[in-house]
Amino acid sequence: MTRIDGRSADELRPVKFARGWLEHAEGSVLVESGRTRVLCAVSVIEGVPRWRKGSGLGWVTAEYAMLPRSTNTRSDRESVKGRLGGRTHEISRLIGRSLRGIIDMSVLGENTLTVDCDVLQADGGTRTAAITGAYVALHDAVTWLGTRGLASSESVLSDSVAAVSVGVVDGEPMLDLKYEEDVTAETDMNVVMTGGGSFIEVQGTAEGAPFSRSELDELLLYAETGCARLTELQREALAS
Amino acid sequence: MTRIDGRSADELRPVKFARGWLEHAEGSVLVESGRTRVLCAVSVIEGVPRWRKGSGLGWVTAEYAMLPRSTNTRSDRESVKGRLGGRTHEISRLIGRSLRGIIDMSVLGENTLTVDCDVLQADGGTRTAAITGAYVALHDAVTWLGTRGLASSESVLSDSVAAVSVGVVDGEPMLDLKYEEDVTAETDMNVVMTGGGSFIEVQGTAEGAPFSRSELDELLLYAETGCARLTELQREALAS
Amino acid sequence: MTRIDGRSADELRPVKFARGWLEHAEGSVLVESGRTRVLCAVSVIEGVPRWRKGSGLGWVTAEYAMLPRSTNTRSDRESVKGRLGGRTHEISRLIGRSLRGIIDMSVLGENTLTVDCDVLQADGGTRTAAITGAYVALHDAVTWLGTRGLASSESVLSDSVAAVSVGVVDGEPMLDLKYEEDVTAETDMNVVMTGGGSFIEVQGTAEGAPFSRSELDELLLYAETGCARLTELQREALAS
Amino acid sequence: MTRIDGRSADELRPVKFARGWLEHAEGSVLVESGRTRVLCAVSVIEGVPRWRKGSGLGWVTAEYAMLPRSTNTRSDRESVKGRLGGRTHEISRLIGRSLRGIIDMSVLGENTLTVDCDVLQADGGTRTAAITGAYVALHDAVTWLGTRGLASSESVLSDSVAAVSVGVVDGEPMLDLKYEEDVTAETDMNVVMTGGGSFIEVQGTAEGAPFSRSELDELLLYAETGCARLTELQREALAS
Amino acid sequence: MTRIDGRSADELRPVKFARGWLEHAEGSVLVESGRTRVLCAVSVIEGVPRWRKGSGLGWVTAEYAMLPRSTNTRSDRESVKGRLGGRTHEISRLIGRSLRGIIDMSVLGENTLTVDCDVLQADGGTRTAAITGAYVALHDAVTWLGTRGLASSESVLSDSVAAVSVGVVDGEPMLDLKYEEDVTAETDMNVVMTGGGSFIEVQGTAEGAPFSRSELDELLLYAETGCARLTELQREALAS
Amino acid sequence: MTRIDGRSADELRPVKFARGWLEHAEGSVLVESGRTRVLCAVSVIEGVPRWRKGSGLGWVTAEYAMLPRSTNTRSDRESVKGRLGGRTHEISRLIGRSLRGIIDMSVLGENTLTVDCDVLQADGGTRTAAITGAYVALHDAVTWLGTRGLASSESVLSDSVAAVSVGVVDGEPMLDLKYEEDVTAETDMNVVMTGGGSFIEVQGTAEGAPFSRSELDELLLYAETGCARLTELQREALAS
Repeated sequence: MTRIDGRSADELRPVKFARGWLEHAEGSVLVESGRTRVLCAVSVIEGVPRWRKGSGLGWVTAEYAMLPRSTNTRSDRESVKGRLGGRTHEISRLIGRSLRGIIDMSVLGENTLTVDCDVLQADGGTRTAAITGAYVALHDAVTWLGTRGLASSESVLSDSVAAVSVGVVDGEPMLDLKYEEDVTAETDMNVVMTGGGSFIEVQGTAEGAPFSRSELDELLLYAETGCARLTELQREALAS
Repeated sequence: MTRIDGRSADELRPVKFARGWLEHAEGSVLVESGRTRVLCAVSVIEGVPRWRKGSGLGWVTAEYAMLPRSTNTRSDRESVKGRLGGRTHEISRLIGRSLRGIIDMSVLGENTLTVDCDVLQADGGTRTAAITGAYVALHDAVTWLGTRGLASSESVLSDSVAAVSVGVVDGEPMLDLKYEEDVTAETDMNVVMTGGGSFIEVQGTAEGAPFSRSELDELLLYAETGCARLTELQREALAS
Repeated sequence: MTRIDGRSADELRPVKFARGWLEHAEGSVLVESGRTRVLCAVSVIEGVPRWRKGSGLGWVTAEYAMLPRSTNTRSDRESVKGRLGGRTHEISRLIGRSLRGIIDMSVLGENTLTVDCDVLQADGGTRTAAITGAYVALHDAVTWLGTRGLASSESVLSDSVAAVSVGVVDGEPMLDLKYEEDVTAETDMNVVMTGGGSFIEVQGTAEGAPFSRSELDELLLYAETGCARLTELQREALAS
Repeated sequence: MTRIDGRSADELRPVKFARGWLEHAEGSVLVESGRTRVLCAVSVIEGVPRWRKGSGLGWVTAEYAMLPRSTNTRSDRESVKGRLGGRTHEISRLIGRSLRGIIDMSVLGENTLTVDCDVLQADGGTRTAAITGAYVALHDAVTWLGTRGLASSESVLSDSVAAVSVGVVDGEPMLDLKYEEDVTAETDMNVVMTGGGSFIEVQGTAEGAPFSRSELDELLLYAETGCARLTELQREALAS
Repeated sequence: MTRIDGRSADELRPVKFARGWLEHAEGSVLVESGRTRVLCAVSVIEGVPRWRKGSGLGWVTAEYAMLPRSTNTRSDRESVKGRLGGRTHEISRLIGRSLRGIIDMSVLGENTLTVDCDVLQADGGTRTAAITGAYVALHDAVTWLGTRGLASSESVLSDSVAAVSVGVVDGEPMLDLKYEEDVTAETDMNVVMTGGGSFIEVQGTAEGAPFSRSELDELLLYAETGCARLTELQREALAS
Repeated sequence: MTRIDGRSADELRPVKFARGWLEHAEGSVLVESGRTRVLCAVSVIEGVPRWRKGSGLGWVTAEYAMLPRSTNTRSDRESVKGRLGGRTHEISRLIGRSLRGIIDMSVLGENTLTVDCDVLQADGGTRTAAITGAYVALHDAVTWLGTRGLASSESVLSDSVAAVSVGVVDGEPMLDLKYEEDVTAETDMNVVMTGGGSFIEVQGTAEGAPFSRSELDELLLYAETGCARLTELQREALAS
């Protein structure tokens, strides 16, 4: 079976990380996964939210948004509508949880890392690209902290983190769905894993028919392959 | 190992379904799972949202909310704050998706079933209790539709649906976490399954340390047991 | 003349108080007046609003809301609409004023009693049922304060408070209107009284034709009878 | 007993109606009651709200607001805060109900009269001045309708309407409270009456101690006197 | 060429300043420019916004709003809509900047002057009338500060400020456009100048065709004439 | 005098136009002016706003926004705050007016061009870069319309449009201020001009001291030079 863009079922789209894309942010990456393009910016902010003050612990939070014309047809701005949609909320929370899963908050001290993931162009997999790119930007921000003697990057990050989507399309499991595949998928799953191969988040949804345990197992296998490959690409990007 | 309330690791809390708890709603259930109490009301509304008009298809949507003093300490009302929080959005969407997974929209016709799940008292597992209870209320609403000749309940519902939480607490997998277990869980997973044993949604999150594939497998097993038992209880409640 | 549900003109609907309906709240009552069902929860919160700090005085505030399907046809959630309606505001303020009328704020100390009245099922008279039930829940919360040595319940409450609706329907004065009576009433009045027989609030509105002074007097008489009976029922409930 | 401004207990403050204060509005009055100044503007708008379409009936609605510096110390704008306060909602609703009480909606046809009452300067009694002034502006707007052959003013208005505040201050009943009296009143009552002497609205509140039936009766007597006098003044203003 | 109201091209409409129109405000003016009527109120508030605390400097801020029926047809209230429109924001900011241009913030000390400009009736040129009137009210508020020994008015105000609109209508430059001229103007310019003849703000917009440099020069000349005349009128008003 | 980045007083920063930066939009440009980077996307949307329906005329509207970390320190998202700030409103309106100044709405037909200008990185002059870039994107969108036979690009655009900032810094007039110059400028002016050399918008503000007529003239001269150069660069970009 060949896919719409010629990939095999377990093949990722080409991934690029452009580090330092923004001159102001402490860490930033323009990550591309095929035609999906997400700008990830990490801001180091002194202090922590009120409820965490005096704990000696840091905090990591994330906000996800899409530019109005990142999509095929223009979407209204949430700032103009005056409220965040449920999907935006949900993805922002997912990114934050994923990154917090590899951070040692006590080493970070009472500093906040705010991660902004803005989708410039969307072609499926924006939330997973955001997580994968945000890790690289976070690494750079933590290095920046280290050079200022605020924290040591080795100890702040306990592991790396990457994410990928998998799904069942026309009865076939597939890795890294692009938009046309995503809208026709019967099952859609986003998986967040550490570089060490453990899971941070598994979110599988039956869009069409419910899925069986064996389909679930197969999808998890694809996800493990995909995340392992993304971990390698993150390492290369950070080494360059 | 004994749990805080004396249950064994794979044991559900006592579940009760009080059908027809509201006199106005087309279907309603006060579901209790231990001390967790959720009032599920299904409203049959003629017509569908604008984007679905003329399709001949029905729609099912859900809203989840917590009363301010359902929790241990009082929470502010979202109506007073003027915005829905991310958690509320996320759970409302989950309930809606779960119920849509077993509905044949074409048999429903251009009618909307709006499912309100209001948590009266919370002790962990409110979202899964909401789904489990909402199915029973939905069944009653569909029967109501049938008695009015609007749709036949057998054909609207392709299966039943139930949900349960599982988690790893102190290194041990456990079924149906109550509040004190939930806040200390290293891994927390919500699983939505059909009566037939397929998955509609799997949402696992590492709250503390990342989890391994084998832990994931074990948790899924517990969830399968729990959902099967809930399915039986739903059947009994609907038979009475 | 017989009423829609067989009551005489000056007869209350059956009233029930289920005390301690919620396990978390310091005081709680599920009050029923016929088919109207309101869940009243009182939360004791240390401290007072900013404008009252340092005064040595306590504060009592109330919030009223209706579940979407408490009514005959479903109403939209105010949390989803993002703003409170005028009616909600108005009733919340009425409940707060009514309860403050019997509280000695200096004995309470700098503590806040927040009273949540959530209508689970509506059949007319929800605001008066809320006040009548809230008093019972408040009494339990004040007792809770007393057992913790924070305040003495005898001295915090200077009297009891109850409320009832009266109205002119088809030219006849009537006590305790249910929904069908309420919507056809020419005049509608809500009266809040102390156990001692004084008035805390009188709100009469000509829905149809203006009303005369003699009609007003007659309605007040009915209200006095109704509140006196509710006061007895409150006492019985608190004694049990 | 002499009052702060030398009036006797049952004496109104000087009242002035400046008709036609605005050149654009179909009816407008700058009403003054002592130092309280309210600008009332009535706009005739073709059509009625959606829920009333096709009924053949008109509609009357009101909005009340205070300029930020109408008060002794500046208040924040509700437009800047982004939400209407409960008091604003409550008074807007009261004004609308009061005016609807004397309008024959079927004679009005499917037209809406929108009444804007903006407090330019506040010294107590702003809501009652708003109602009293709004009636005069409404009369002018109805005359305007008549001259255009849209409706006949005689038949649209079934009566006139006026409103006044009464209260118990230092144990003494008083008519038409100014600000300093209002803040120290034990009981505060707003009464809306028709020119014919019937009641449209009675709203009495115990601000301090609960009030007895005899106090209530005395206050109603004062209110009747005050409204009768205001009715005369309205007639004079409309005759000039 | 004669204008719609008989003025010559470089002639202002009649201007009136009614000082002390409000009894509560530290400075207030009802300014009229033809039929345009704006109520300007200046409130002296102790303290400054948080971001300015500890600087020893004062602050001046302005809010502009229109009453719903100040205009030819009724506009919705921004408080009811729940958000400020872009035009309101823009004009509020313009008024604030204009007044700050003549204030010595260090002499003012850590006090805030809040300037409310509420349009009671609109016939073109409301923003420029607001600035011209606000200066007079500000002067009175600063005098009030002086009499309390809080600041000396001479030193707080470095100059006076006035504003006027100019435009090209039917190919002709004109001073002080009234509504009918404004809506048909090809070019519309608002100019804010000090009493000394310098510019604080120049905002020119091509509503129809773009304008040439020579048209721009001609309009600026008209604006200079107009502002000079307004400066004289302000002086007279403050002298009386 | 040398400027902070070595430019002469009347020298623009290097400008780059990356056309077609987005694959979904009908016209898009990533415009760079020094370190300022704005992504301009033009969406062709069938139909016009309600108030313009049936007119046969098209519409052009613009929205401006900044990414949270486009600035030196992170700014909060307006979507999270739930309201647009005054500056955002003001700039969005300026961009829309500027583009409408060169569009023949009748040739466009009842189509809307929505222009999104998102600042990815800010270093002064973001609103003028947005206008200059948006013109290029608009041209591409109009060409797209032409190729679909919907409108002819020659006739839709009556001219080109470009914008530049000028200001007085340390007493010296300067063209195209970067951030550090902008914050210290005494006078700041944004000028929008057509390719033909006419003005569409002139907005000059005294940030520090008021400015004289001769300073204004000098600044306009610089702006004319700058816009002429930008017009050339736009032509080159569109020719490539």
